[in-house]
Amino acid sequence: MSCLHTILYDFSAEAGNNELTVKEGETLTVTNQSIGGGWIEAQNSRGEVGLVPEDYIEVKETQKLLFVSLHFQFLHIYTFYRRLLNSLYSLCLKHNHVCMYLLSGAEDDEWDDEWDDMKSTGGYAESESGDGGGMQRGGAHAPSMKISLNKFPGFSKPGPELYLLCKQLAKSKERLPIYVGEVGPVWSYPETQLDCVVADPKKGSKMYGLKSYIEYQITPNTTNRPVNHRYKHFDWLYERLLDKFGSAIPIPSLPDKQVTGRFEEEFIKVRMERLQGWMTRMCRHPVLSNSDVFQIFLTYKDEKDWKTGKRKAEKDETVGVMVFSTIEPEAADLDPVEVEQKCEQFSRFTKAMDDGVKEILTVGNEHWKRCTGPLPKEYQRIGKAFQNLSSVFTSSGYQGESTLTDAMTAAGKTYEEIAQMVADQPRKDLHFVMETNNEYKGLLGCFPDTIGYHKAAIEKVKEGDKLVAASKITPQDKVTMAKRVSIMSYALQAEMNHFHSNRIYDYNRVMQLYLEEQVNFYETIAAKLKQAHGQFTTM
Amino acid sequence: MSCLHTILYDFSAEAGNNELTVKEGETLTVTNQSIGGGWIEAQNSRGEVGLVPEDYIEVKETQKLLFVSLHFQFLHIYTFYRRLLNSLYSLCLKHNHVCMYLLSGAEDDEWDDEWDDMKSTGGYAESESGDGGGMQRGGAHAPSMKISLNKFPGFSKPGPELYLLCKQLAKSKERLPIYVGEVGPVWSYPETQLDCVVADPKKGSKMYGLKSYIEYQITPNTTNRPVNHRYKHFDWLYERLLDKFGSAIPIPSLPDKQVTGRFEEEFIKVRMERLQGWMTRMCRHPVLSNSDVFQIFLTYKDEKDWKTGKRKAEKDETVGVMVFSTIEPEAADLDPVEVEQKCEQFSRFTKAMDDGVKEILTVGNEHWKRCTGPLPKEYQRIGKAFQNLSSVFTSSGYQGESTLTDAMTAAGKTYEEIAQMVADQPRKDLHFVMETNNEYKGLLGCFPDTIGYHKAAIEKVKEGDKLVAASKITPQDKVTMAKRVSIMSYALQAEMNHFHSNRIYDYNRVMQLYLEEQVNFYETIAAKLKQAHGQFTTM
Repeated sequence: MSCLHTILYDFSAEAGNNELTVKEGETLTVTNQSIGGGWIEAQNSRGEVGLVPEDYIEVKETQKLLFVSLHFQFLHIYTFYRRLLNSLYSLCLKHNHVCMYLLSGAEDDEWDDEWDDMKSTGGYAESESGDGGGMQRGGAHAPSMKISLNKFPGFSKPGPELYLLCKQLAKSKERLPIYVGEVGPVWSYPETQLDCVVADPKKGSKMYGLKSYIEYQITPNTTNRPVNHRYKHFDWLYERLLDKFGSAIPIPSLPDKQVTGRFEEEFIKVRMERLQGWMTRMCRHPVLSNSDVFQIFLTYKDEKDWKTGKRKAEKDETVGVMVFSTIEPEAADLDPVEVEQKCEQFSRFTKAMDDGVKEILTVGNEHWKRCTGPLPKEYQRIGKAFQNLSSVFTSSGYQGESTLTDAMTAAGKTYEEIAQMVADQPRKDLHFVMETNNEYKGLLGCFPDTIGYHKAAIEKVKEGDKLVAASKITPQDKVTMAKRVSIMSYALQAEMNHFHSNRIYDYNRVMQLYLEEQVNFYETIAAKLKQAHGQFTTM
Repeated sequence: MSCLHTILYDFSAEAGNNELTVKEGETLTVTNQSIGGGWIEAQNSRGEVGLVPEDYIEVKETQKLLFVSLHFQFLHIYTFYRRLLNSLYSLCLKHNHVCMYLLSGAEDDEWDDEWDDMKSTGGYAESESGDGGGMQRGGAHAPSMKISLNKFPGFSKPGPELYLLCKQLAKSKERLPIYVGEVGPVWSYPETQLDCVVADPKKGSKMYGLKSYIEYQITPNTTNRPVNHRYKHFDWLYERLLDKFGSAIPIPSLPDKQVTGRFEEEFIKVRMERLQGWMTRMCRHPVLSNSDVFQIFLTYKDEKDWKTGKRKAEKDETVGVMVFSTIEPEAADLDPVEVEQKCEQFSRFTKAMDDGVKEILTVGNEHWKRCTGPLPKEYQRIGKAFQNLSSVFTSSGYQGESTLTDAMTAAGKTYEEIAQMVADQPRKDLHFVMETNNEYKGLLGCFPDTIGYHKAAIEKVKEGDKLVAASKITPQDKVTMAKRVSIMSYALQAEMNHFHSNRIYDYNRVMQLYLEEQVNFYETIAAKLKQAHGQFTTM
C-alpha cells in the first residue's frame, strides 16, 4: 500500500482542514487509506502529510474496489444509526412520550452536529412562497412549532397565570425598563446601536471529512473582533432567545435549513444573507441585543468562554412568562379595559399586515416567475425575429441595403440584451422586496403566540371576581394580577412601537431601493433602444 | 294601426338616413309598419316623419306578435334565397361546373350588394396571426384563391405561352417602359407620386334600412376632390388590377371582410386604416397608379362617369399574361440563363422573407397577447398589493406613518398606471409593426403566382429546341419566345426593384416608429417611477 500514486488533478488545500495542496502529475505515498468520506491521507515528495480527495489519486482498480466496499459498509452503519435516531425522535413527537425528554438529555454533541445541520424543514410550517430562481425563498415558521427539548418536556408552555399569580417574584438583577416616549411606551434604547457583519462562510469538516458544515464569521461593531459560528449555534441562540423572551417579544425564526445544495455557492450566499438579516434584526432590538446570551454569542473570547457562556444561558431560570417579572414600566398602571383595547388593536393590525405581506409575496413570486421565465424568452424571440429578417434582407442583392440591415440587426441585438436584463432584474430589486416581506411574514407569524399570552392574561384578570368569590385567589391576588397585566401591556406596547418604527424604516428603505433599481432598469432599456433607434436613417 | 305609441328610450337620428330623433315618453303615430329590418316609419307630434327602431316603440303584444311574425316570414324568404345562391356557388366551386359562368352572368347588382359586404372570409386562406386586441389582424390570401368570375370561366388561367407564342400582338396604345437605373431595371416613375387619403367612413343604408353599408371618402392629391366608394368598389378595383396586371405585378389582397362587428367603431377604424394602406401601396406603384382603371376609381366626376369607366375597364382585353405585350424594356435582350438565375434568386428571397415576416407576426402576436393580457394584470396586482399594505399601515395608530403610507400608495398607483400603459402600448407601436408585416405577408403571398408564370415561361423556352424538332413551333417562334421571356424578366426585375425600394422604406419607417414609441414608453415609466421614488424619505 505504500507504493507511489499519481495525482490526476490539481487540488488546493483549504486552511485549517489538514489538507494537502497537490499538482497534477505529482506522485504521493498514501499513508492512511481508511480516513473515509472521500479523503485519503498522503505524503508528498517534500515529506508533507495531509488529506487529499480520493478521486484525485490514481488507484489501482482492485485496491479502489476494496476501499469503496469498506467505505460503503461504514456509511451503511452510520446511516442506520442516524435513521434509528430519526425514527425515535419522530415517534416521540407523535406520541408526546416522556422518552423525548430522555432522548434530549442523551444529546450527543458530536453526532448531533450533522443531524442539526442536515435535517429537513419537515418540522416547520412549510414555506408558502415558491421558488424564485432556483433557490427556495425563505418561508417562516411560527415559533410555537419549534419544540425546545431542554425546557418544556411536557409540551405545554406554562400559561400567564404562572407570572400573574406568582407569590414571590425571584429577585433578578435583570431589569427591563419601559419609558413613555412620544409614540407611547418604548423600550430603553442604547445610545449606539449594536450591529454585526456576517461574512466569510467557510466549509469545515469533522470526523475525517465524513461530516462537513459551513462556519460563518460574525463581527460585532462593539469589539470589531470576529467570532465563528455554525448554523447550529445560531439555532441554539434562537432557542435561548425564544425561551427567555418569546412570551414578550416575537422572535423570528432562523432562515430555513435545507439539505439539497448545501454547499452550492448560491445557497450559501442566500443563507448568509438571511442570517445577516436575522442578526441585524436581533441587534436592532434593544432588549434582545443587550441580553447576556446574545452578548456571549457575539463576543466570546475563546472556546472555554463560549462553553461557560452556553452553560450559564442554558441554566437561566427567568424564562417563559417569568420574563415579565423583569419588566419595569415607569408609568402609571393601565386600566384593564385599555389593556384589552390595545391588545385587540395589535391583534387586528398584525393579522391585517400578515395578509398584506402575503399578498405581496404571492404577487411578487408570480412576477418573479414571469420575469425570469416567459418574458425574457419573448424578448429574445423578438430580437431573433428582427435579426432573422435583417439577415434575409442582406441576401436581397439590392444595393443600399446595409444601412437598414445593420440597424435592424442592432435593434434585434438590443432586444436580446433587454431579455437578459429582464431576467436579471428580479435579483436586483424584487429580491429585496421578497426578502423583507419574507422576514416580516416570519415576524408576524410570531405575534399570534405573543398576543395569545396577553389575551389569556386578560381573561384571567376578568375572571378575578369569580376567582375571589370561589376563594381560589385572594382580593390582593386580584389587585396584583391587574397590576401585572398592566406591565404585560406596557411590554406589548413597547414591542409594538419597536415593531412599527422598524417596519417604517424597513419598508421605506426597501421601497426606495426597489423603485431606484426599477428606474435604472427602465432608463437603461430606454437608452439602449434610443441608441438602436439612432441607427436607422432619418427620413 | 294609427293609434299613438309611446317611445321607450331616447333615439338620435343619423343624418341622411331618413331617421327621426325621439325622446323617451314621447308619443308617435306609426305611419308604416312594413319597412322591415327592425325599423318603423312614424310621425311625431310636430308632424315630422322618419324611421325609428322598432324596439324603441311600445307596441301592444298582439300587434307586435303579428308584426314580428310577418317580419320573420319575410326574413325567411330572403334568407332562403341567399342560401340557395350560396349553395349554388359552393357547388360550382367544387365541381368546376359551367353554371358558374352562367351564375356570374346572372349578377343582380341590388342583391349582390349585401352579399358582397356580408360574406365571410370563407373563400380566402384564413388569417394565421390570431386576435390582437379584440380585432382580427388582417391576414392575407393568395390572389390565386380569388376567382374572377367574369374573366376565366374555365378556372385555369391562360399560361405564359399565350403571350410567348402569340403571332400578332394587339396594337395597344398602352405602353409600360422599363429603364435601366442604378439598381437595374426599373419602371418609369412619375415625377410627383400619386397619393390619396381614405377617410370619413359613413354608414349608408338601402332598401328602407334592411341593407346597410359603409361608404369611405377617398381624396387623391392630384385633384384634391373626394370620391365615395364602398368596400365592394374597392373589391371591384382589386379584381380589375388583378386581371390586368396580376401576371406581372403582385397585387396584394384587400383587407379581410368581416361579418361580426361590422358597425363597431373600432372595426371600421381598422378596416379604413387597412384600406388606406392598400390604396397607398397602389398609389406608390408607378404602373398600377397610372392605369386607367385606378384613375377612374379615384377621379370619376359623377355616377355616369363612374358607370362608363367601370364598363370600359371590364371590357379591357389586355389582361392576364397579355399585359407583357405592353412592356417595353429599353435595354438589350437577356440571356435565358440569366433570366432563370434572376427568377430563382427572387423566388428564394421572397420565400425567405415570407418566413421572416411570419416569424415576426407569430412573435408579435404572442407579445401582443402578453402585453394586453397577463402582464398589465400583474402590474395592477403589484400596484394593489402596495396600496393594500399601505392602507394596513395607515391603520397602525402609530404616529409619523403618513410619509411612508402616502409614498407607498403613490408607488402602488404608479404601478396601476404602468399596467394601463403596458396594455395600451401595443396599439401605439407593435400595431404598426404587425400591420406592415401583415401587408408584406399578403404581398409576398402573391409572389409564388407571379414567379410561377415566369418559371413556366422559362420552361417553355427551354423546350424550344424540342418543340422546333417536333414542328410544334417554328425556329422564328423560338427566337420570339426567348425575346419575350427576356421582356418578362425585365418586368420581374423592375417589380423586384420596386419591391426592394418600398421594403427598405417601409421597414426603416416602421422600425423607427416602433423604437421611438418604445423609447417613449420606457422613459415615461422611468419618469413615473422616479416621481414615486421621490416621495419616500431619504435616509
